[in-house]
Amino acid sequence: MAVYQRLGLIAGGGDLPVYVAQAAQSGDRLACVIALKGFADPTRYDCPVIRGIAQLGQVVKDLRQADCDAVCFAGIVTRPDFSALKPDLKGMAFLPQALTAAARGDDALLRAIVGFFEKEGFTVIGANDIADELLVEPGLIGSIEPSAVTRSDAAKALHIAGVTGAEDIGQGAVVCEGLVLAVEAQEGTDQMLARVAGLPAELRGDELSRKGVLAKRPKPGQERRIDLPVIGVSTVHGAARAGLAGIVIPAGGAMVLGREAVAQAADASGLAVWAVEMDGQADDANA
Amino acid sequence: MAVYQRLGLIAGGGDLPVYVAQAAQSGDRLACVIALKGFADPTRYDCPVIRGIAQLGQVVKDLRQADCDAVCFAGIVTRPDFSALKPDLKGMAFLPQALTAAARGDDALLRAIVGFFEKEGFTVIGANDIADELLVEPGLIGSIEPSAVTRSDAAKALHIAGVTGAEDIGQGAVVCEGLVLAVEAQEGTDQMLARVAGLPAELRGDELSRKGVLAKRPKPGQERRIDLPVIGVSTVHGAARAGLAGIVIPAGGAMVLGREAVAQAADASGLAVWAVEMDGQADDANA
Repeated sequence: MAVYQRLGLIAGGGDLPVYVAQAAQSGDRLACVIALKGFADPTRYDCPVIRGIAQLGQVVKDLRQADCDAVCFAGIVTRPDFSALKPDLKGMAFLPQALTAAARGDDALLRAIVGFFEKEGFTVIGANDIADELLVEPGLIGSIEPSAVTRSDAAKALHIAGVTGAEDIGQGAVVCEGLVLAVEAQEGTDQMLARVAGLPAELRGDELSRKGVLAKRPKPGQERRIDLPVIGVSTVHGAARAGLAGIVIPAGGAMVLGREAVAQAADASGLAVWAVEMDGQADDANA
Repeated sequence: MAVYQRLGLIAGGGDLPVYVAQAAQSGDRLACVIALKGFADPTRYDCPVIRGIAQLGQVVKDLRQADCDAVCFAGIVTRPDFSALKPDLKGMAFLPQALTAAARGDDALLRAIVGFFEKEGFTVIGANDIADELLVEPGLIGSIEPSAVTRSDAAKALHIAGVTGAEDIGQGAVVCEGLVLAVEAQEGTDQMLARVAGLPAELRGDELSRKGVLAKRPKPGQERRIDLPVIGVSTVHGAARAGLAGIVIPAGGAMVLGREAVAQAADASGLAVWAVEMDGQADDANA
């Protein structure tokens, strides 16, 4: 794990950055929180600085003023309308590179951003390295065991998410009795699950007879310090509404937000949620 | 092209089987139309026989009574709820094989069905071999030329649809300025396009500034006598609503229903619709 003394947290939306802030604070190493305008809820942090995503020069200045040696990106940030950004000077200088990377995919764009902050002298640290309790060991989360059919769907869903992830498309897929019901791209996991819930009843399971699995996994070779897949209670609820029998993630390769609550939601809905050991493919980068 | 004298058309939903019926009739070779219950609209055919999709024994009897030497499957048929089927004896005997194939994907299921009819002694003929005007040569359909960016999106969308098609996931993908916006699985093209229309405005084009391309292509190695991709006027309208700049298909690898109307719709909406020459990958099966 990377060594750092004073962390700058660059926070997007959702719960993940809140977990990271708490973990860094409990280790007395949270030096500043930069809440990204339009994404982070600043009321969830102590004295955050609020910045736009293209104010790169200002963000670097904030980090230096807080004497940070490291930076962590956590939380949901959707792609901006690049033409509507109001970049500062450093942001302007970085924009052409960002645009080129953006056209290759999300992972390419994130790598460019990591590269920018490294060049400015900061160590980039993954959310999972700060709040390491968010990663899970192989095994059940909750108490429901997946059936043999569910395990087989899980293996295929992990495979499919690996194939599409290798193309920098997305991190999720849903497979039901061998059939690929949905592949995640820019719409995100919640919308993909809602779409599965809307498929013809004969293709999927339902509350009485759950079938099929959501797999979320890192893209093979992706930058793992940023954008590791996340599941939480809302993922379980979405999967439950889609009639699924389970959710599978690779151990050490996806973050579980609120493990107790996820386990309870899984048990209450009758879903198996579990982590599997994955071989090289998931872990070929930054291992 | 396969030689046949008397064709039995097994019709699902949509316009394609109507085109096939007309083409076979004009060659005086349409011996019978079997309209699949729940999918085909029987009023669009002369004297069709109406059968359920699991009445395989009855369908074979119908084809024999009409003295057919060949059969063509055309039109939309969604996967049934296998447990709710009312198969006849032959259907019952075929069901285990169909279930096994169905768990591998749509193409596997369709191959099993083709195999069944071949074993019964019928030549299976593709809709495009009967209504060969549905296939197109390389070039524009309509009069709008794709821009360089649109061509580059088209190349990537064809690549992505090839990668997902090789996994028997689906035949379509949408790419906008290099980013994969959506991948088609069981929801179908129309729903995928509706989803793209619902993505954040900064990720996609709109009516004023069209961006991005829908590609539809056969799955690499797929059974091409059945389930070749189809585009029609509704595809153009869906792509237009999604803000896309174009639709690309492989020449000889997808059917265009109502070419004149498609060209007019494309021109009216400001979309480029065109067919490209594709190398081996698209054509590696049944070539």
